[in-house]
Amino acid sequence: MLIIDAHDLSGLVKKISFGAFLDQLVTCMKHDFMHAHEFHQCPRVSFKHPEGILELMPVFNQDFFANKYVCTHKDNHHKNHYVVMGQGLWVDAHTGQPLMITEMTILTAIRTAAVSLMMSELMLKTNCQSMAIIGCGAQSDFQVMAHQKFGFNDIRCFDIDKHSMNRLINQMAKEGISIRPCESVEEAVRDVDFIITLTNANRTYPLIREEWLKNGVHINAMGGDAPGSSELDSSIIKNSDIIVVEYLEQTKLEGETQQLVESGNMGHVVEIAEFLKSKFDPNPICHSSIFDGVGIALLDYSAMRLVWKLCHEHHIGHQIKMLPPYRGDKNLYQFLSLNSD
Amino acid sequence: MLIIDAHDLSGLVKKISFGAFLDQLVTCMKHDFMHAHEFHQCPRVSFKHPEGILELMPVFNQDFFANKYVCTHKDNHHKNHYVVMGQGLWVDAHTGQPLMITEMTILTAIRTAAVSLMMSELMLKTNCQSMAIIGCGAQSDFQVMAHQKFGFNDIRCFDIDKHSMNRLINQMAKEGISIRPCESVEEAVRDVDFIITLTNANRTYPLIREEWLKNGVHINAMGGDAPGSSELDSSIIKNSDIIVVEYLEQTKLEGETQQLVESGNMGHVVEIAEFLKSKFDPNPICHSSIFDGVGIALLDYSAMRLVWKLCHEHHIGHQIKMLPPYRGDKNLYQFLSLNSD
Repeated sequence: MLIIDAHDLSGLVKKISFGAFLDQLVTCMKHDFMHAHEFHQCPRVSFKHPEGILELMPVFNQDFFANKYVCTHKDNHHKNHYVVMGQGLWVDAHTGQPLMITEMTILTAIRTAAVSLMMSELMLKTNCQSMAIIGCGAQSDFQVMAHQKFGFNDIRCFDIDKHSMNRLINQMAKEGISIRPCESVEEAVRDVDFIITLTNANRTYPLIREEWLKNGVHINAMGGDAPGSSELDSSIIKNSDIIVVEYLEQTKLEGETQQLVESGNMGHVVEIAEFLKSKFDPNPICHSSIFDGVGIALLDYSAMRLVWKLCHEHHIGHQIKMLPPYRGDKNLYQFLSLNSD
Repeated sequence: MLIIDAHDLSGLVKKISFGAFLDQLVTCMKHDFMHAHEFHQCPRVSFKHPEGILELMPVFNQDFFANKYVCTHKDNHHKNHYVVMGQGLWVDAHTGQPLMITEMTILTAIRTAAVSLMMSELMLKTNCQSMAIIGCGAQSDFQVMAHQKFGFNDIRCFDIDKHSMNRLINQMAKEGISIRPCESVEEAVRDVDFIITLTNANRTYPLIREEWLKNGVHINAMGGDAPGSSELDSSIIKNSDIIVVEYLEQTKLEGETQQLVESGNMGHVVEIAEFLKSKFDPNPICHSSIFDGVGIALLDYSAMRLVWKLCHEHHIGHQIKMLPPYRGDKNLYQFLSLNSD
């Protein structure tokens, strides 16, 4: 079994460059979404612990079974840990043999940036000039870096935590990207062409209101993914021209689209798999277009598939003999026996 | 994160001896079952692939989260793999941090033997002389070895596959245990004091019939754990004095007790947690007593808890830095940046 730790993964991404890795991951994701019907998907399996949430995200097709373990422990910063930590298991579905364990703390942030980038490439109008990032946590850098290729000349950010905002601005300055801090969500999003939301949406500060938005804005709503939480004013959701989601069964439970389920008005909601087959032109969008991303197991499958492939090509990671050797019969006890050959 | 591969695990068990490891595991299991109310349990999450079954078995309490991945791919022998292969993930529930990945191909067979032994110690009549093993697959050696301490002077076995039967007999002969091969299930079980069933119960050969059984027999029904499959004649199940199960919600789906659900006659079915608190005397049992084991996540929790403890005590396994180091802020992107410190 191949082990890919955080050092291996960051080494791989640095070696081929973050941009190239993302582009390859977008290609993998598009392929996997185009073949979504060949996958067995289910909503994540979620467990509530008093100190956090522990989740399993399994998915498989004919060839591979992927399962991500991921936690979200909001007070982890006080315990010297990241809030979100993940780890992936990659299995040969034909035999059930575990093939790889990979770190997914960093990889989860990368795959979330990749799906966001994929949807931006499909849904952003031509000639977008301005972008706003709402929520400057661990994922925000990845989103800004992923969207660098669009050449926005006005990038703004907002977070209730000024320290987080400054951290993002400083890190991005090192990458040659200039971001303007804002005093409020309103200041950040007013009249921008493109918004990425990345918050916990605990509703202690204003959500994004419809009246602040430019007509035709595109929003990648990446945060607030939990039952009962959302980042967008319900009128934005209702009046949007189109809402693209990853996997409706899970989005209904966690995404912005939760708000629509009660009303039953889901006519403008479409899954990525279907959306990819349509010929979508973003330019006539008059109110808004939304990608309501909650993060699904299929994204992790694509990410593990790519890591599995690239780590072999670049000889990254270390092999461990996890399984007892198979010697042609059912004798498993021999490995414990003091009297075996 | 600690990695325990097959070589580490078998080294640990050999070091402290299989018998001592089992005894410690029985103690752990008893403790965990006595505290079952403190665990969040759910039936296993099961996925059907054309070539096998892929399963996740999560469980947690205040302190630890355990998840076993396990496959059952019946044709794996033709692909040079074991039919059942497993791997465990052990997590600090307070932070969500993965602490250990352990092999569970061997460990699953050990924990199944341990729960079987635990129930035999509680449910076998005094002065049992004879035991029958039905099904001589990979788990059978572990069950025989676990029950060595009872000093049976008549041990019989049966399997439709003579090669498997001979393999078990030869391996046990090396351990100084004599087992008599039988020509039929009937020959093996007729008038014995104790039966362990370990088959796939695909019903191509006769199940155990009530008329073959000695009055007062005890049965550990460890095999046949899948919806629709069972090893015992329904009259045995119905007429049994007592049936102990691990976790009714899962047993109802997979165990022998499936047969009782429709009839609604579950009065003699009791979960281990409750059974442990009762003062059970096996000697007055007149028809039969049954432990209907299907294998639940709590058993894997106990096994991982013990392995975690013993591997620290005996300095076994190797550490891997799976997570990116936490440096006091939300900066996760720094590990991919060519421009960070």
